[in-house]
Amino acid sequence: MAGGGFGGLAVVKGLAGAPVTITLIDRRNHHLFQPLLYQVATASLATSEIAWPIRSLVRDRADVTTVLAQVTGVDAAARLVRLEDGTTLPYDTLVLATGARHAYFGHDEWEPFALGLKTIEDATTIRRRILMAFEQAERETNPTRQMALLSFVIVGAGPTGVELAGTIAELARHTLPRDFRNIDPGRARVVLIEAGPRVLGGYPDSLSDYARASLAKLGVEVELGAAVSEVTADHVAYGDKRLETRTVIWAAGVRASPAADWLGAPADGAGRLKVEPDLSVPGHPEVFALGDTASVLTPSGRPAPGIAPVAKQAGAYAAKVIQARLRGASPPGPFRYRHPGSLAQIGKRRAVIDFGWIRLKGTLAWWLWGVAHIYFLIGARTRIAVALNWLWIHARNQRSARLITQGTPRSG
Amino acid sequence: MAGGGFGGLAVVKGLAGAPVTITLIDRRNHHLFQPLLYQVATASLATSEIAWPIRSLVRDRADVTTVLAQVTGVDAAARLVRLEDGTTLPYDTLVLATGARHAYFGHDEWEPFALGLKTIEDATTIRRRILMAFEQAERETNPTRQMALLSFVIVGAGPTGVELAGTIAELARHTLPRDFRNIDPGRARVVLIEAGPRVLGGYPDSLSDYARASLAKLGVEVELGAAVSEVTADHVAYGDKRLETRTVIWAAGVRASPAADWLGAPADGAGRLKVEPDLSVPGHPEVFALGDTASVLTPSGRPAPGIAPVAKQAGAYAAKVIQARLRGASPPGPFRYRHPGSLAQIGKRRAVIDFGWIRLKGTLAWWLWGVAHIYFLIGARTRIAVALNWLWIHARNQRSARLITQGTPRSG
Repeated sequence: MAGGGFGGLAVVKGLAGAPVTITLIDRRNHHLFQPLLYQVATASLATSEIAWPIRSLVRDRADVTTVLAQVTGVDAAARLVRLEDGTTLPYDTLVLATGARHAYFGHDEWEPFALGLKTIEDATTIRRRILMAFEQAERETNPTRQMALLSFVIVGAGPTGVELAGTIAELARHTLPRDFRNIDPGRARVVLIEAGPRVLGGYPDSLSDYARASLAKLGVEVELGAAVSEVTADHVAYGDKRLETRTVIWAAGVRASPAADWLGAPADGAGRLKVEPDLSVPGHPEVFALGDTASVLTPSGRPAPGIAPVAKQAGAYAAKVIQARLRGASPPGPFRYRHPGSLAQIGKRRAVIDFGWIRLKGTLAWWLWGVAHIYFLIGARTRIAVALNWLWIHARNQRSARLITQGTPRSG
Repeated sequence: MAGGGFGGLAVVKGLAGAPVTITLIDRRNHHLFQPLLYQVATASLATSEIAWPIRSLVRDRADVTTVLAQVTGVDAAARLVRLEDGTTLPYDTLVLATGARHAYFGHDEWEPFALGLKTIEDATTIRRRILMAFEQAERETNPTRQMALLSFVIVGAGPTGVELAGTIAELARHTLPRDFRNIDPGRARVVLIEAGPRVLGGYPDSLSDYARASLAKLGVEVELGAAVSEVTADHVAYGDKRLETRTVIWAAGVRASPAADWLGAPADGAGRLKVEPDLSVPGHPEVFALGDTASVLTPSGRPAPGIAPVAKQAGAYAAKVIQARLRGASPPGPFRYRHPGSLAQIGKRRAVIDFGWIRLKGTLAWWLWGVAHIYFLIGARTRIAVALNWLWIHARNQRSARLITQGTPRSG
């Protein structure tokens, strides 16, 4: 089992009681609740509230051994997984749920300037850059440079980009203003750039319109139909415009882990492994791939989105297939993803939820959004801690996780 | 006002209402509750539970401007503070409360191997090293190397060292055991090395004895009268002994900030500025120094310890002196430190408290220790969060902040 994210843990859970031993490999020691990563990036939650040590999550499963290691390759003929220290682990069945990394559509030279949001360190780096931008603006006497420091650009208006833009605007307009003397943080510009024609393009039009209006209420400038053409240390260019900025956050593209390369198997344009209807890899029925690292087709013919519910359902399904094989039973039908609904938060008291049969927006949606996210967190302690944090932000606009850490105070 | 720690904030608080403007300079953006830093280092609390943005703490004081900057020098003749970017800030009155850093008694070459505990990053580094040691031991096949990974050395048996040793032992024996398959974390060695003849040498003998017994109950090996002679990447030498270890934590010596150098003023052996009875610097009545960076003599003739109550009382006193000067009133008498009591926690349900007129040990002391620390934290939200964390550890041995962050999973 390579990967301790949503997909990997769903497989482990689904195999409980099966006559197997499971080796769970992950290059980090913790399982990360990625849907709330943007809240660490905007100083609303602490890192320990959205991540849990994998070992602890599986401690009661005597059949599961956790290995902190990085997978560097797979020898499918010999049925071995290769690790970064040169050792190998044999397998009878291998499940690859190794996730994705952010990608720049071929412009890797933008990476130092366009911060991605996929890991805990990504989130604390963004947090530091945002808070430092205000600190530097406070001391900056040149008005042009000061405005550049107070301009924040988010690229990509999917749920992550929308949530980031809305929360940064909230931070600037509600949390920070009384803390500064030389600047008015409320004057910060938050610009959300999207190449497509809508924000939340995959959502129903009514919710997408509501999100757009909510962003406007928060003072977020939305640029649609605008593809970014350049990102440097001091500006971003899109369409025929150019914006001086010191903070660019990239929420626009992802690329799968190298799982396809490890196997030498066919992948799509984003590097995702193409899988059979039962999630196994063509030619290697003992190897499964799921989650962000795989391209799983939905009944519409399009690949399922890289979101948590897909990985969880696929993981549970793969576990069923493996269980059936062990019992010598006939396999379940092909994997069919059931979309539970889409959610996105746009700022204080505003969210959109699409359950298909019902759509909600506004404050009610925001409460449900909160309840749903708390429900999916792991452990009572975390749920209470996160609920407490959110109640505090809601009641008092005070964000508790506003620490500038890592490196020297002046470094980026 | 240079420094936003306990001393600096006490000065700011004491000057409320005075006809002054205050510029508060700190090289970090947050105020750190150092007495609980060891809890971040042992994965018991999150960083955001013991640190608060300085700007927020003074947001309601229109007379206070916060500057995130590093002081690099003082021009006492011109009454200017020099900052790292070359700019200067003028002052009428200057208070230096810039704290201390850990020091190695002249053996700076030990620094890469002997981790100090003074900043947030120190704490997360130690946390990562401790958790990684167990992860690496889990995969280590050579028994000698495995035992070295499972050996943890703490140098210095003052309150910090005792609290660290006790909590690491608790982590190893109570929190981690069911999480690992190849190692028994309960077998980890925790060794506390002290050059003097007692643990908690500054405490009354009865409490020092109790602490020693509590550490023994937790399986901590205490080496007294043992001065460390060498620290390298793979061992520590003390007396005529040598211990193979990969994790050494330094809780033995501190050195004041360079405040004395900035002024060219006399300092003691640890670099602390020698001050007049009214905490002003000899020859510079408009400059005050307090807290860890100053050497303040107690009635016994010995310098006051580098602990929070000293800094807080000195800060409040300096504010009184300044207020008196502004009113043209006669100055208060010389600064007299009143020791409120000594506390130290040694592990779950064990602590010692010395109030002078009463001494407590055991579980009652531990509850009071908890209440006192929560009381001194800042803000209701933090108090609730920390109380929640501690209740969880107490009830379930589960530590929430067990994340390995920063750098690659394999890096130290």
